[in-house]
Amino acid sequence: MHSPEELRLRVETYLNELELTSELGQLREAVHYSLLGGGKRIRPVLALATAEALEVNVDHMLAAACSIELVHTFSLVHDDLPALDDDDLRRGQPSCHAKYGEAVAILAGDALLAEALRLALLYGTPEVARELTDASLGMIGGQYIDITSEVQLDSDGLVELHRLKTGKLLAAPIGCALAVAGVTPNEQRPWRTFAAELGLLFQIVDDVLDATGTAEQLGKTPGKDEAAGKVTYVTLHGIDRARQLADDARSRIEKELAGIPADTSSLYEIVATIRERRT
Amino acid sequence: MHSPEELRLRVETYLNELELTSELGQLREAVHYSLLGGGKRIRPVLALATAEALEVNVDHMLAAACSIELVHTFSLVHDDLPALDDDDLRRGQPSCHAKYGEAVAILAGDALLAEALRLALLYGTPEVARELTDASLGMIGGQYIDITSEVQLDSDGLVELHRLKTGKLLAAPIGCALAVAGVTPNEQRPWRTFAAELGLLFQIVDDVLDATGTAEQLGKTPGKDEAAGKVTYVTLHGIDRARQLADDARSRIEKELAGIPADTSSLYEIVATIRERRT
Repeated sequence: MHSPEELRLRVETYLNELELTSELGQLREAVHYSLLGGGKRIRPVLALATAEALEVNVDHMLAAACSIELVHTFSLVHDDLPALDDDDLRRGQPSCHAKYGEAVAILAGDALLAEALRLALLYGTPEVARELTDASLGMIGGQYIDITSEVQLDSDGLVELHRLKTGKLLAAPIGCALAVAGVTPNEQRPWRTFAAELGLLFQIVDDVLDATGTAEQLGKTPGKDEAAGKVTYVTLHGIDRARQLADDARSRIEKELAGIPADTSSLYEIVATIRERRT
Repeated sequence: MHSPEELRLRVETYLNELELTSELGQLREAVHYSLLGGGKRIRPVLALATAEALEVNVDHMLAAACSIELVHTFSLVHDDLPALDDDDLRRGQPSCHAKYGEAVAILAGDALLAEALRLALLYGTPEVARELTDASLGMIGGQYIDITSEVQLDSDGLVELHRLKTGKLLAAPIGCALAVAGVTPNEQRPWRTFAAELGLLFQIVDDVLDATGTAEQLGKTPGKDEAAGKVTYVTLHGIDRARQLADDARSRIEKELAGIPADTSSLYEIVATIRERRT
């Protein structure tokens, strides 16, 4: 069992050494730029930690784990575009379109999604790629709600938005690990519950940070959600109640993990990191 | 063995009845709009005709065949965006962004690519989705060359551009049919040669039509390539020589088909349609 930090280093190495499809030509530069911009790699680390709990070797899980990071990066590149969130700053650096122009950023996003599928298809079973595709479709549906919800979302609407936009790609690491490990549907239930709660926790913390963090800490423009009139857990419930909701979600997650008969120590640690992160 | 027109009707029915992922919500409207805009369905028809020549049932091939049409539609939706080709007209109708706005068009294109993979992943083998993913990556590489080649391409550069941008998705129907039929790599060679030549033929004819057609005939803005200073088979060789190159490609394709021990009558008919099309 490796620590989350050890797993993160494996992910960084894999992404650094990843050979993108040569036919992408110079577009690979923009893809690499977006991919190697120093994210926290929470999703692939989650995938590797889940795989280890399921007694799958890290080496065998790396492609599937990193395929999720590619989809995540694709979503950021397109979300940052002027027509969508219009954000010139990402992870403390110029976002893809700010550096390479809109046309290249659109194609780089497309390439990231297709490359992600290529990695997920390195396995003998189509199940890994199915998990990734379903998660991608849900995430895209969430992005659509996000950019088109002109009326203020209520509490239920907010939960649905984040179940799709954030939750799907945070659940995908667990889904992909279950697919690689070949866990039967009957045995998947506690894992799936864990995965769903994780997305909720992540989003509440994200909203709290957006309301309280600085650009330097976050590496992106803070306070954008409230300025854009977006409903968040903070605008809806206030900062103290939002923090309490995050703690409640963490408690439910830890209870769920405790019921799974496997070594989930790294997963506990990741959950703690998600709750306590400051950036 | 069905005629190309019979196969086209099967494709239309399948696409009309296709249930998109419900989590896409209202985004499905923009996806449907782009998908059901009345294309010629050359790629899925090619896939079905190839499958029948390989003794695969049409019903079993429809998902794979239509997955290619979804990738093709994805490429058109993103290619039409203001940051890329900036075309407000597609198949005689407002293009996706002209009707729904840029943000929705970007997400609709993303959804089309992901839905395409979902269809390709309905098969027991990952091989179908691999063919589709490889073709998509090549096509994206071709788009990149197309939007960034500031210096005039020479004849070799033009061939490479089209091998990727147009050729990959015209070869994919054959690749996907070979995957569904489970044809061994050794037996694939003549099919792959046929597939590669087909893309070349299609592109030369496209360039001739762009130089000679009207908006009414084409359902899109004609003469754009030359106006944009793009190198085409017509700007490079003149209209008469371009037509001769198309006829030469057709002859090579028919020779290749004649050497394949299967009923390729529908494929002959499709090749003739590609050469003789006026729109």
